[in-house]
Amino acid sequence: MAQAQKITPRAKDYSEWYNDVIMQAELADYSPVRGCMVIRPHGYRLWELMQRALDDMFKATGHQNAYFPLFIPMSFLAKEAEHVEGFAKEVALVTHTRLKATGKAGAQAVMVDPESALDEPLVVRPTSETIIYAMFAKWVQSYRDLPLLMNQWCNIVRWELRTRLFLRTTEFLWQEGHTAHATEPEAEAEARQMLGVYRTFQEEWMAMPVITGKKTESEKFAGALRTYALEALMQDNKALQAGTSHNLGQNFAKAFNVQYQTAAGGLEYVWNTSWGVTTRMIGGLVMTHSDDNGLVCPPKLAPVQVAIVPIWKSEEEKGRVLEVGEGVKQELARAGVRVELDARENLKPGAKYFEWEAKGVPLRLEIGPRDVAAGQVMAARRTGGKAPARLPGIAGSVTAALDQIQAALFRSAKDRREAHSIRGASKPQFIEFMKGPGGFAYGGFCGSGACEAEIKQETAATVRVLPDPEFRSPDQPKTCMWCGKPSVAEAVWAQAY
Amino acid sequence: MAQAQKITPRAKDYSEWYNDVIMQAELADYSPVRGCMVIRPHGYRLWELMQRALDDMFKATGHQNAYFPLFIPMSFLAKEAEHVEGFAKEVALVTHTRLKATGKAGAQAVMVDPESALDEPLVVRPTSETIIYAMFAKWVQSYRDLPLLMNQWCNIVRWELRTRLFLRTTEFLWQEGHTAHATEPEAEAEARQMLGVYRTFQEEWMAMPVITGKKTESEKFAGALRTYALEALMQDNKALQAGTSHNLGQNFAKAFNVQYQTAAGGLEYVWNTSWGVTTRMIGGLVMTHSDDNGLVCPPKLAPVQVAIVPIWKSEEEKGRVLEVGEGVKQELARAGVRVELDARENLKPGAKYFEWEAKGVPLRLEIGPRDVAAGQVMAARRTGGKAPARLPGIAGSVTAALDQIQAALFRSAKDRREAHSIRGASKPQFIEFMKGPGGFAYGGFCGSGACEAEIKQETAATVRVLPDPEFRSPDQPKTCMWCGKPSVAEAVWAQAY
Repeated sequence: MAQAQKITPRAKDYSEWYNDVIMQAELADYSPVRGCMVIRPHGYRLWELMQRALDDMFKATGHQNAYFPLFIPMSFLAKEAEHVEGFAKEVALVTHTRLKATGKAGAQAVMVDPESALDEPLVVRPTSETIIYAMFAKWVQSYRDLPLLMNQWCNIVRWELRTRLFLRTTEFLWQEGHTAHATEPEAEAEARQMLGVYRTFQEEWMAMPVITGKKTESEKFAGALRTYALEALMQDNKALQAGTSHNLGQNFAKAFNVQYQTAAGGLEYVWNTSWGVTTRMIGGLVMTHSDDNGLVCPPKLAPVQVAIVPIWKSEEEKGRVLEVGEGVKQELARAGVRVELDARENLKPGAKYFEWEAKGVPLRLEIGPRDVAAGQVMAARRTGGKAPARLPGIAGSVTAALDQIQAALFRSAKDRREAHSIRGASKPQFIEFMKGPGGFAYGGFCGSGACEAEIKQETAATVRVLPDPEFRSPDQPKTCMWCGKPSVAEAVWAQAY
Repeated sequence: MAQAQKITPRAKDYSEWYNDVIMQAELADYSPVRGCMVIRPHGYRLWELMQRALDDMFKATGHQNAYFPLFIPMSFLAKEAEHVEGFAKEVALVTHTRLKATGKAGAQAVMVDPESALDEPLVVRPTSETIIYAMFAKWVQSYRDLPLLMNQWCNIVRWELRTRLFLRTTEFLWQEGHTAHATEPEAEAEARQMLGVYRTFQEEWMAMPVITGKKTESEKFAGALRTYALEALMQDNKALQAGTSHNLGQNFAKAFNVQYQTAAGGLEYVWNTSWGVTTRMIGGLVMTHSDDNGLVCPPKLAPVQVAIVPIWKSEEEKGRVLEVGEGVKQELARAGVRVELDARENLKPGAKYFEWEAKGVPLRLEIGPRDVAAGQVMAARRTGGKAPARLPGIAGSVTAALDQIQAALFRSAKDRREAHSIRGASKPQFIEFMKGPGGFAYGGFCGSGACEAEIKQETAATVRVLPDPEFRSPDQPKTCMWCGKPSVAEAVWAQAY
């Protein structure tokens, strides 16, 4: 594999740092396909762990997984007016179905066979509302069929011009929940419930604090009645939208004629929700915790939670430290810890430390001959600190350390966010803040799209959310931070990914 | 949901029966996209259980999951001559990236924006050798990087003209393993090992007996050195190719320049393997076990292993049977059984039986007031037979019954296969067999493609495999069953899906 290289420090070039962390941790790599990345085994394992945790929560809340086609007939996308307008500029279109050899010499040169043109082009799904609600129309007949609670794990394509590993790629992986309900309050409760599931996951598993709230009209999903979102603050003080949950109202139900017979015998349109999180969360995890030595991964999602590095000089020492290392490994594995024993011959311990650090492993256990003699190992935390741990009861002290690291990562990320949040700023202070350190700025908002556009123009900041009650400032603003007119809601602004 | 309908008997129309079983079990549904199906929750849960079992086996044999782009540049496919020839006629091609509104009135009509044409069209992956080996070239430098053992779970598109639910769909789900090795023997061992993993899965989990062996030149994978396959016999005596494992030799390594430095300092091309199984296995499972009442699912893969149906007439009875039902459910769930308690009010027990039967649930527990009084439940097997089971120790007797059902399904499928296999037939007998009942015909084969083509022309049968030693006939044939020339290998012929 590629030689380990120095990671660009955050202070020098944040964007380079981000790419370096990902490449050094072998989370992903650039592919020869414009805007598409390869998720490497270490990154994919992280995604699998995320999937498992989320999927369990989806199932615990009554959702079932299904799989819908990758392709959507072009005319389907057009059935909901706002929806097609939102996605028209970024869809990959399948128009032909055969290759043929070119006239040139050398049988291996090929071209699109013009005779294989499709009657109706197919859109590679940029999201699946249209195809899924077309199926719901077939499956939903009576109120007894409701609610219909589905989820799909799949790949998605949006033709993005500027792409960045995990944060914005032409193809990405996600899950999209799609539900149908008999009434508006039920759909609303579902959209809010799933926002809560995401928050639990992002805070308790990713150790990434989020602000939840509602999107403004200009930022909501194309075709939704209301969009709720989770916003996290990265180390460069830019916000990352980490997930969304939409109350779609009856917009798609009307476009695809999803109706049900009520208990009273009438015919009503269903109310839909959709909600999704993507591989972008991996980018959020990277930028929330990592440092200039590479990835820092919260223990609950770390592909490798503990790396054991045996240290020896002689063959005799090697036998002893490996034996103890193997024993510790087995004891930790039995306790459910994801553990690796790094017994590679051709690498010095220092090089191994460097590699496991770059890969974000939360805890490293070093075992040298003196440790063996003393009945202990040295436990080095990825986040700093090194102390001996007694061999008897090692599983208990390791799992306790992992829990502590998990909790500390969340606390420190939350402290950082709060240290980079301002409330009740005046317009000049707001402008200064967005020019300077940046972060979350809370303030009154008149609700006008014109104000939003002007703020974006002048400061590059957008309304991330109209925050939910628990995130609101104790003193609710009376006037719009920007124009001074009466405030309709407190808003949180930030520059965003 | 749709009303339950009668399933067409196998004897009347096998093909209709197959579709009916799938629709009634709610495994899948037709979609509005030509050739693409929707995998419904019951079918997707089955796929998830298959995935989990296979994925565990892949990881246990040292493979790691990763994710590669959906799109492959057209020129990549062309780099391996046989490969592009094999897939050129069935690829979905992305040529444009934007929609625009048409001039017509009504903002919702759209067309492909001709100005968004890509410089190089992209192929929607029909398989990922080319894109994956292009990445391997980046990652493999030295012999220390080998073997590289990867797997990908993803969707695949092949533009098929005639499609059938699960068996042949334009888009399907699969896994594709891709590995790189230093030597030919290592690649060969890997290809054989994964064939063995598939066999274990298909026989022990799917209860579907398979014959393993090598494909002839005319049936091997486009670009492979050798293809190994697993073949199962369906109830209409047609063969289903249930999985393949390829030794790719150095064909792709040369096309994509995947070289490694040897320990001695030289430069060599790697040896690759690839291997895959797909959602087609669900079709194989359906056709191996199901009957005229619907799906029969082997217990190890059944989304619901046990359905508890309480029976009551009065409210007082209802209370008692539901209490016992809930207790049984919890006891079974604790024992790791996938169990449902069907307490629906609006359905009679008979209708519930009908539904769970169609869904393939291996074991149904009926609990009426008299059963409660007698301290028992009635256990009805999907495959026939009904007997009381005592409430104390119910988990033990249920898991024992599930094990018995699993074993019996395999045995009966294997007996059926053997009853529809002939060995050492003469040419006229072979022709008669293929006209008549059909099945697996073992016989000598001269190895000539001309003979294969003639046999296919006259009987619609193809060589499924040159079987592995344990499947070969005790008396190895000396001459080609068709042309009488010396036999180079015993072959197994059948008409196939």
